[in-house]
Amino acid sequence: MRLYDAAVAPNPRRVRWLLAEKGVTDLEVVVVDIPAGEHKQPDYLDRAGLPQLPALEMDDGTWITESIAICRYLESRYPEPNLFGRGPEETAVIEMWMRRAEMLLAVPFMLGVRHSHPGFAILEAQVPEVAAYNQRTALAALTVFDDQLAENDWLAGDRLTIADIVAYIGIDFARIVRLRPPEDLAHLARWVGAMRARPAASA
Amino acid sequence: MRLYDAAVAPNPRRVRWLLAEKGVTDLEVVVVDIPAGEHKQPDYLDRAGLPQLPALEMDDGTWITESIAICRYLESRYPEPNLFGRGPEETAVIEMWMRRAEMLLAVPFMLGVRHSHPGFAILEAQVPEVAAYNQRTALAALTVFDDQLAENDWLAGDRLTIADIVAYIGIDFARIVRLRPPEDLAHLARWVGAMRARPAASA
Repeated sequence: MRLYDAAVAPNPRRVRWLLAEKGVTDLEVVVVDIPAGEHKQPDYLDRAGLPQLPALEMDDGTWITESIAICRYLESRYPEPNLFGRGPEETAVIEMWMRRAEMLLAVPFMLGVRHSHPGFAILEAQVPEVAAYNQRTALAALTVFDDQLAENDWLAGDRLTIADIVAYIGIDFARIVRLRPPEDLAHLARWVGAMRARPAASA
Repeated sequence: MRLYDAAVAPNPRRVRWLLAEKGVTDLEVVVVDIPAGEHKQPDYLDRAGLPQLPALEMDDGTWITESIAICRYLESRYPEPNLFGRGPEETAVIEMWMRRAEMLLAVPFMLGVRHSHPGFAILEAQVPEVAAYNQRTALAALTVFDDQLAENDWLAGDRLTIADIVAYIGIDFARIVRLRPPEDLAHLARWVGAMRARPAASA
């Protein structure tokens, strides 16, 4: 098993965070240099299928991309602490909050960054209206999470799960374009502080 | 267990398609009238958490939204035919293709429709540049799926899975704004025909 990782990008960070929560230190990691274009070289692209990071070569030799597919597979190999749920009902609630975090925060914040930060101008034709729309919708969605955190320590119940990891990394990534949660979202602010204080935050 | 369903919308259709593939006919279904705003009434909103369809009241009484969380839970209750994978490796490959279908096709086609079709103008302030960007990126991504289907009957291997359902419904939804896959994508066209011919397509 071998993980292909990259610095800075939010999706590889999800996998590193999960591994840190699980205390995994024996996984072989290959760092791919995105600014140098290593993820677009044939020997990477032929195996990953798309120029995306992270990627994982599984035990049977198959490569997969998509951070959540990778994280779920790693949970099967490193079950504790559990981050995806025990039993169908809990698994469903965690997946619901993970997908809300992905669709309402991580994706729009990512597009809000990619279409406005000068560093991403070389990657695609930036559309200012796309940046503005996504930044606006992501910031507006934060109240959904603040409401949930008013009654729960963590997004999907009484412990940290993959939903918290996806939500926090989405929010944290937006800081590079100076987007921060409104300060009146006190429950969200408490949870942001708790996430930032975890050792995995610097993984 | 009780499913909250809605006509026309693509996400409820995923659940109906899955149930049809599994031959489930004994699930209680409540149809929610989105145009009449029933999904924004307090008795729905208080339980679903967000004004979204589909929703599922699980056996333990907990409500969940998010079509994929619902589909995975239903697979635990109706295991055959398997649509999410057997064992961690196959499950990972299927989740990878499901997420590629979601992120590269379903989400951008949905935004491409919502921001351009007159019927959605009452739901939000439509941004023409957001429509154009999403339509362009979704159409461009179709080649990724055509390439995969050049060597596979189905997106994630040798049988239909949840990845095919997500991809097809995303593509099919875009027809209401007259967006169709380019005709030179022959492998995709063959697969679209196979999906359309399934009884579940009219569920």
